[in-house]
Amino acid sequence: MDSGFVIVADWGSSKLRAHLCQIDTDDKLVPIDVGFGLGVTKVNGQFQQELESVSANWILQYGEMPILLSGQIGANIGWHEAPYVRCPAKTNQLADHLYQFSVNDMPVYIVPGMSCMLDNDTPDVMRGEELQVMGWLAQKPERQQGQHLLCLPGTHTKWVLVNNGQIEVFKTSMTGELYELLSSNSVLIQTVNNTLSEPSFMQGIELASRQTGFFSHGVFSVRTRQLFGQLNPEDSCSYLSGILVGADVRGAVTSSAWNMENIACVHLIGATDLVFRFELALKHHDVDVIKHEVEEVNLAGYQQIIKQIKAAD
Amino acid sequence: MDSGFVIVADWGSSKLRAHLCQIDTDDKLVPIDVGFGLGVTKVNGQFQQELESVSANWILQYGEMPILLSGQIGANIGWHEAPYVRCPAKTNQLADHLYQFSVNDMPVYIVPGMSCMLDNDTPDVMRGEELQVMGWLAQKPERQQGQHLLCLPGTHTKWVLVNNGQIEVFKTSMTGELYELLSSNSVLIQTVNNTLSEPSFMQGIELASRQTGFFSHGVFSVRTRQLFGQLNPEDSCSYLSGILVGADVRGAVTSSAWNMENIACVHLIGATDLVFRFELALKHHDVDVIKHEVEEVNLAGYQQIIKQIKAAD
Repeated sequence: MDSGFVIVADWGSSKLRAHLCQIDTDDKLVPIDVGFGLGVTKVNGQFQQELESVSANWILQYGEMPILLSGQIGANIGWHEAPYVRCPAKTNQLADHLYQFSVNDMPVYIVPGMSCMLDNDTPDVMRGEELQVMGWLAQKPERQQGQHLLCLPGTHTKWVLVNNGQIEVFKTSMTGELYELLSSNSVLIQTVNNTLSEPSFMQGIELASRQTGFFSHGVFSVRTRQLFGQLNPEDSCSYLSGILVGADVRGAVTSSAWNMENIACVHLIGATDLVFRFELALKHHDVDVIKHEVEEVNLAGYQQIIKQIKAAD
Repeated sequence: MDSGFVIVADWGSSKLRAHLCQIDTDDKLVPIDVGFGLGVTKVNGQFQQELESVSANWILQYGEMPILLSGQIGANIGWHEAPYVRCPAKTNQLADHLYQFSVNDMPVYIVPGMSCMLDNDTPDVMRGEELQVMGWLAQKPERQQGQHLLCLPGTHTKWVLVNNGQIEVFKTSMTGELYELLSSNSVLIQTVNNTLSEPSFMQGIELASRQTGFFSHGVFSVRTRQLFGQLNPEDSCSYLSGILVGADVRGAVTSSAWNMENIACVHLIGATDLVFRFELALKHHDVDVIKHEVEEVNLAGYQQIIKQIKAAD
C-alpha cells in the first residue's frame, strides 16, 4: 500500500461502482475519477475482464496500484469468497479478514461481509453495508460510544444496531425488491411512476402504521383505492411505496432486536430520494433522523481498511 | 329460464371454467360436462367468440339455453360491467342486480361482485367469491344464523364475515400473487418446487406467527437459511409459502374487522392443496376449520341465482 493511488469499488449484484482515489498525506482518500461496470450476477464469471475494463485507463495513467473491493463480489456467487465475519464484532475485524490475491501483479483485497443470528434463530447477512457502517463509525470518534441504530435503505434495506463501536445485530427487509416486483409485475399498478407524490406516500405510511398483519391484508388497497377514485393511478406507486416503507419502518421500530427507547435517533445512509422516504416514515413514528452522504461514508470505510493494511505492513 | 339446461361459468382474470348443467326436477344443478377457455385479460376483448368456442358443441347438442357468468367478466375490464353490490348485504341481492343481455338469442346473466368499506377507510372488492358464499349459505339453512368466518384461499385470498345470512365485511390478502412473484422473480428462490415439505412450511408459519412487522423483516430468511444450511433449497418454496400463509392467517386472526372470540371455526373453500396449507396455519393458531368442496359450493351458488330468476319470471 505504498502507492499514492488506490482503486476502491462497491461491486454489488447488479452493478460495479469504482473510484480512483489519491491517498493524501494524512491518509485521506480523495476521489479523482469514477467508473461503472456490470454487477456480479451479470458478468458471467468474467470478473477480471470486467475489472480491467473499468480500471485500464487509470492504471495506464497512474501506474500499478492496490484495489479494494466490497459487496457481493466476496459472496459465494462472487469472484472469491470472503467468509462472513460474525456479529457481534468490531468493524476493524473486517480488515483482519480481507481476502487477498493478485491481478496483473497488483494486490486486490476483498472486504468480507458480516453475518448475525437473530433472536428468532434466523441468520442474517450483509455485504457492502458493513463497510459503510465502518466508515460512519470512523467519521466521528464519539460514535464509538453508546447505542446507535443505522438504516441503509436499498433493494435490501439494512437496519444495523451499533453498541460501543461494535456491530451487535442487524436486520434485512426486502422493501426495495418488493417495490420492484409489485410495481412492475402485479395487479396493483398499471403504469409505473417513480415520482414521489408525498400525500399518497403518507397515506400508505398511515395505513401501514396502524395495524398488525397489515402487509398481506393492506397492500390490495393500492388497487381498490384506484377503483373507487380514492387514489389517482399516477400516484399509486407512491402509495404502494408508502405501504412498503411504512411496513419496513414499523417492523424496525417495534423490533425485539433493539429497544427504541434507548435509541436517540436513526442514522440514514443511502440514495437521497429513498432516504427522504424513510425520513418521512420515521418522523411519522416520532423518531428523529440524521442523514449521511453515502459516498462520503463509503470512502471513509475504505480509508479505514487502507489504514489497517498499512499498519499491518 | 324454462330450458332444462344451463351453462354456468366462473370467468376470472386468467381462465374461464364452464359447466354444462341439467336443471333437475327440484331445481338442482347436475353437471354434465366441463369446458375451459381463456381468462378476461387474455382474450383481447373477444369475449363472445371465446364463450362461443367453449359452448358451441353443447348448444348444438342440447339447443339454446341461458348462460350464467361470474367473476372478473363483470369488472370494468370485462365484457359488461355489473357494478358491485355494497356490503353489508344479503347474497340474494346479487340476483337482484344481474347484468342481463343476449348472445345469439340466448339470455346471458352476469353476477355482480361485492364491495365493502373497511374500518380503516379502505375499500375492498371481490368477484366470483360472493357466489361461493351464496352457495355455501344455501347448502344448509342453519348457516343463515349467527356469525361465520369464511376463508377462500387463492391468488387473492378472501376472508369473509357472514352475520345472520348477510355478508358484513371482507378482506383481501394477496398471498397467492406474492408467492408467485417471490418464488419466480426474487433473490429468495433459485428453483421453484411447489411440492409441500410440511416441516419447512411449518417453520415458516412458526416464524410468521411470532412477531409484529414480521413480513418485511422476516422473508429474507428464505435466503439466509439456505446460505447457512438451515434450509434445503428444494424446501425453500415450502418455507416461503409458510411465511406468506402464516402472515395472511395472522393478519386475519388479529384483524379488527371481526373478533375471533365470536368465531367458532373458519370455513375453508378452495383448491385442496391450498386449503390444506391454510388449515395447518389456522390450527397453529388453535382455530378449528371445516373444509368445503369449491365445485359444490359454486354450483349451489348458481342454483340460487337460477331459482331467483325463475321466481321473478
